[in-house]
Amino acid sequence: MKGSEGLLATAAAAGVDVCFANPGTTEIPLVEAFDQVPEVRAVLGLSEGVVTGAADGYGRMTGRPALTLLHLGPGFANGIANLHNARRARTPIVNLIGEHASWHQSADAPLHSDIESLAKPVSGWVGRTSSAAAASGEFAEAYLAALRNHSPATLIAAADHMWSQGGVPATAPAAPQRPQGDEQQIAEVAKVLAAGRRPVLLLGGQVVESPEGIRTAVRIAAAAGGAVLAERGSARVERGPGIPPVPVLPYFPEAVTEALQGYSDLVLVGARTPVSFFGYKGQPSHPLPSGMAVHELADSDADALHALAALAERTGSAAEEPPHAERPEVVAPAGPLDADAIAAAIVLTQPENSIIVNEGVSSSASYPAIADAAPAHCELSQTGGAIGMGMPVATGAAIARPDRPVINLQADGSAAYTVQALWTQARESLNVTTVICSNSRYRILDHELQRAGIDDPGAAAASMTSLADPAVDWLSVARGFGVEAVRVTTGEDLLKALGRAHGEHGPHLVEAVL
Amino acid sequence: MKGSEGLLATAAAAGVDVCFANPGTTEIPLVEAFDQVPEVRAVLGLSEGVVTGAADGYGRMTGRPALTLLHLGPGFANGIANLHNARRARTPIVNLIGEHASWHQSADAPLHSDIESLAKPVSGWVGRTSSAAAASGEFAEAYLAALRNHSPATLIAAADHMWSQGGVPATAPAAPQRPQGDEQQIAEVAKVLAAGRRPVLLLGGQVVESPEGIRTAVRIAAAAGGAVLAERGSARVERGPGIPPVPVLPYFPEAVTEALQGYSDLVLVGARTPVSFFGYKGQPSHPLPSGMAVHELADSDADALHALAALAERTGSAAEEPPHAERPEVVAPAGPLDADAIAAAIVLTQPENSIIVNEGVSSSASYPAIADAAPAHCELSQTGGAIGMGMPVATGAAIARPDRPVINLQADGSAAYTVQALWTQARESLNVTTVICSNSRYRILDHELQRAGIDDPGAAAASMTSLADPAVDWLSVARGFGVEAVRVTTGEDLLKALGRAHGEHGPHLVEAVL
Repeated sequence: MKGSEGLLATAAAAGVDVCFANPGTTEIPLVEAFDQVPEVRAVLGLSEGVVTGAADGYGRMTGRPALTLLHLGPGFANGIANLHNARRARTPIVNLIGEHASWHQSADAPLHSDIESLAKPVSGWVGRTSSAAAASGEFAEAYLAALRNHSPATLIAAADHMWSQGGVPATAPAAPQRPQGDEQQIAEVAKVLAAGRRPVLLLGGQVVESPEGIRTAVRIAAAAGGAVLAERGSARVERGPGIPPVPVLPYFPEAVTEALQGYSDLVLVGARTPVSFFGYKGQPSHPLPSGMAVHELADSDADALHALAALAERTGSAAEEPPHAERPEVVAPAGPLDADAIAAAIVLTQPENSIIVNEGVSSSASYPAIADAAPAHCELSQTGGAIGMGMPVATGAAIARPDRPVINLQADGSAAYTVQALWTQARESLNVTTVICSNSRYRILDHELQRAGIDDPGAAAASMTSLADPAVDWLSVARGFGVEAVRVTTGEDLLKALGRAHGEHGPHLVEAVL
Repeated sequence: MKGSEGLLATAAAAGVDVCFANPGTTEIPLVEAFDQVPEVRAVLGLSEGVVTGAADGYGRMTGRPALTLLHLGPGFANGIANLHNARRARTPIVNLIGEHASWHQSADAPLHSDIESLAKPVSGWVGRTSSAAAASGEFAEAYLAALRNHSPATLIAAADHMWSQGGVPATAPAAPQRPQGDEQQIAEVAKVLAAGRRPVLLLGGQVVESPEGIRTAVRIAAAAGGAVLAERGSARVERGPGIPPVPVLPYFPEAVTEALQGYSDLVLVGARTPVSFFGYKGQPSHPLPSGMAVHELADSDADALHALAALAERTGSAAEEPPHAERPEVVAPAGPLDADAIAAAIVLTQPENSIIVNEGVSSSASYPAIADAAPAHCELSQTGGAIGMGMPVATGAAIARPDRPVINLQADGSAAYTVQALWTQARESLNVTTVICSNSRYRILDHELQRAGIDDPGAAAASMTSLADPAVDWLSVARGFGVEAVRVTTGEDLLKALGRAHGEHGPHLVEAVL
């Protein structure tokens, strides 16, 4: 058995069933092994940003690592941006990077580079194979690290270790358990909630992925006379008729401070202390109202759901009914489109159990603001700010859950980064409907210029935010990559186009012109 | 004056006239400054692979650094693959990475990452700004490092250093001179050439960029009873009626050994000792015939042209006529297309002074094999093996030399990496004609599977080399990004399509179906 087969058999035994790949010469032994280990399905992406973003989408939907197969340092580098987002989403992924044969690495061949230096910023674990026999054990270590660290782990596999005989499957590693929350932390939070002040629970991570977790948090907050909010940029948020609405923190720091105003204590439940996305003149990094005390229910690696259940017991709110919450009313959009109209059209047409992948950027906030009116669904959002995640994450989510429709609310500027993902959607006949918010601008940069006091930018600055000359023809691009596409300019037509797309198998793209 | 204006004014004073950019929020102060310092023209790319590849193409054509403007670690990461190629091409580039405000960096905001770790593998110099006042001097340091190291240099500019007042333009740095070659090394090579053995001069770097350098090398070799070869993957090779043909070393190691067989001594003239692109079972890293002695005329940073001229003096070959060399005869292609037919069509139609950007991958070798039949031109090739360089490098070369037609011989698999470059070609009305070698395969991987002994790959392995289902419709993709396109399947039609493209202003794409 070759080293590559031993490694892949170990992956299969651990339950890995998908490898998103863009292989080159150094990965040929692993490419061969796909036919020996059919439990691992290889899915090709036309560039590595697609590959790593798809692995992120897969991992967010399953909690299990997909493999990626990437070509040396430069191939890996193309996937770093979406691994950055995956790291922020706390998604387990195992990257396999094919490396030159061990004896060839010192020759400084053209593709040689310092792979560790590239990998470390986006990997909780980085290692190298040491032989054909040891490679499967080294894979098992990477696999466990990805689960334990909730992060990409990167194994650099020398071509000769992969092509040589002597591979042996290692014992399949069992998924590690999250450590339970610290009783003292829980007790302290219980004391805060009992103090008769006005606390707010900030939910994130595991908690917003769990309908029961959300309900528990809402009960606890109600009993304490407080409220709940969700942190921005969650990997996955569950919503639906049985789940209480949880408003999401806004984007700009002034608005975050305002949203938290009037609360006495901030209780982090699977969330981090809010941090401003960027540093702005005169704004603090952590935009909290002055005097607000911050408490953490459980460490970031601990089981926040368990801690939350324990907190509910302590505060006597375990058995209470969550308070009734109004759901937004959504009116069918008519006439010219804007971000709100697009969000409304999605909410009104999305099938039960849809997966919403939201990389709307300047149009992103419109959807979660009304999404509690939609049927049961989950939303995967921008976690790390590296644009170009939407189409790849949608692709991976659809591979992970072929039984669920995927809807990708997608800004046009970001779409242009990784539009190649449409080809994988076509090749794999994935049920992904992409809605391009086509404003032919980097609209967010217009806002940022205004914030910097530039209301009337000069021609050079203005040209850096415009995608209008020429406007990208998204229909042509989509068809070029094999995906059916239509263009709409009104709410009425958008509703019709979405209805049609959801009724047909396979990928669709709707260019919604703003 | 803001820090950003001081920095950009320093760049302008040093002669920087182009900044390839894909800015985000942390680069807003530099975006604003483009209107204050109009000497630096900002050129937008839809993704950072376009931006850095364009800077490589610009630098290869001018010898001067262009700026890139990139957004934090993830934005930079998207540009690493083409910076890897630039490093191998020894292209000077100055990367400006906008970083969070200095006081915001410790907050671990979503886009925060270890930028240095990402930058070091592709940068000869990495630094950070320290204040608005110091930033221009720090830029000057980066600029000089790019020229001195023949490599990208990366300056990480904190947003607050850029937006704060207190910027001052620094003294414009003067371009450093290359050190002269070592007299003793030159004398030793002269002795080798006088020994009556059969030497071969391997040309690369500066030497193949210089018609006079090539002529001198050919004279020296002829006088010594030897020959000349060019290393593979040169940044720029000049060719034309007045320049003697220099065969290029082949790709696979067995063929390299065969090409060098029968020569006694290998003299490196601006080139490196040949290294196998990948490590193969039973093949050495350096595929030289046994017993071949290797001599270096000048260190890699030294002035190889000066050393060559000195060598010509010493060997008494300075005044000789270069021996007459036959030029290939090229027959007009007819009927179905293959790689040779595409190369022939390009050679027969390319206008005088064309710039050929060759990322043909499995079709790459056909062009240089017959290019000595073409009018005067230069060829920029794949230096580092990170695919996706062709379209961006062609874009940057056209920005650098608007007076010269650019022809991009482009593999389809690689084109899919950075096809967004077409948009910049359309936006800037660049005279680039892209010829897609459309075989709907990663053909090079088919070869590599065969070399690994897999003549009949299984379905899973075969699917990793096929781009056929669906085949990318390059006409639609090109039109989507604003570029006129036609599809041809015969030599006759390809000749016509190229003739038409060269006769019209602006970018064109020809999909040549193999």
